[in-house]
Amino acid sequence: MNEAGFRSFMPRALALARAAADTGEVPIGAVVVRDGQIIAEAHNSPRADHDPTAHAEILAIRRAALALGDERLTGCDLWVTLEPCAMCAGAIAHARIARLYYAASDPKGGAVEHGARVFDQPQCLHRPEVYTGIGEADAAQMLRGFFRERR
Amino acid sequence: MNEAGFRSFMPRALALARAAADTGEVPIGAVVVRDGQIIAEAHNSPRADHDPTAHAEILAIRRAALALGDERLTGCDLWVTLEPCAMCAGAIAHARIARLYYAASDPKGGAVEHGARVFDQPQCLHRPEVYTGIGEADAAQMLRGFFRERR
Repeated sequence: MNEAGFRSFMPRALALARAAADTGEVPIGAVVVRDGQIIAEAHNSPRADHDPTAHAEILAIRRAALALGDERLTGCDLWVTLEPCAMCAGAIAHARIARLYYAASDPKGGAVEHGARVFDQPQCLHRPEVYTGIGEADAAQMLRGFFRERR
Repeated sequence: MNEAGFRSFMPRALALARAAADTGEVPIGAVVVRDGQIIAEAHNSPRADHDPTAHAEILAIRRAALALGDERLTGCDLWVTLEPCAMCAGAIAHARIARLYYAASDPKGGAVEHGARVFDQPQCLHRPEVYTGIGEADAAQMLRGFFRERR
C-alpha cells in the first residue's frame, strides 16, 4: 500500500500472466478485488479449456460472481494486464465492475480506447472508471517476449 | 428444409427462449449448428447461474467448443433470437463462427448493427456472414411480453 492508502493488484495480475505463458497461453492475467481483498483471479486459458471465451477477465468475473452468488459485481474492481477486447469490455459492463485498471493498451484487439470503444457507446448501461498504465512496461514486455518465441 | 435445401434452426432457438422465460430469465435462445446438426444449445441464464456472462450465445459457444474439443468453431453457424451484444459479438469473432443468424434486432443492446458494431471494426479478426430477420416477429413479441409482465 502506498502513502495514499492505494494498493495495486497489478503485480498479482502480472504473476498470473506469467503463469499463463508457462502453460503456452497468451500471457494475460486478471484479478477481481472487493474492499481491498482478492475475491477471484484467472489467467487466459482458451487453448487448455477449449473455450474461445476463456479470457482472463471473463474467467475472473465468472469466478467472482459465483463466489458472491450474484450476477452483479457492484463495488468490485478488475485489474488486468491488457486492455480488454470487445467481449471482455461487454462482460465488465454487464457485471457492473466499478473500476477497471489495465496495464498495457492494445491497439490491435482492445475495445476500451480502441476499435469498438464499448464504454463510449450511448447504449452502454454501465461504465466503469478506467485507469491505465500501471505495470504497462512489464505487461507489454511479457507479451512481446511470448510472441517473439513463437515466431 | 425448404426448396433451397436450407433448414432454419430459429424455431429451436425460439423454443429455448421460451424455456428461459419460464424460469424467469430474459427470453433469448441460441443454437450452434455444424453440417446441419445441432452441436450445442442454450438459453439466457445469468440469474440462475450467478454469471453475468451467461448469455445464450456465450453458453452455446462454450458448450460447442467443449463438445468439439477445439476453441475454434470453424464452419459452425450460430442461430440466436436477438441481435448479440458487444460481449457476445466479440465471442462470435473469437470462436470463428461462419454464419450468424439472428431474429430481432436490438437498438438498445445490440452490437452488430448498432452501437459498438463489433464486426465493422478494422481490428475485428473474423467477421461471420450475418443474416437477420428470420423469426423476428416471434422473438420480439416474446421479449415484449416478458418485460410487460415484469413492469
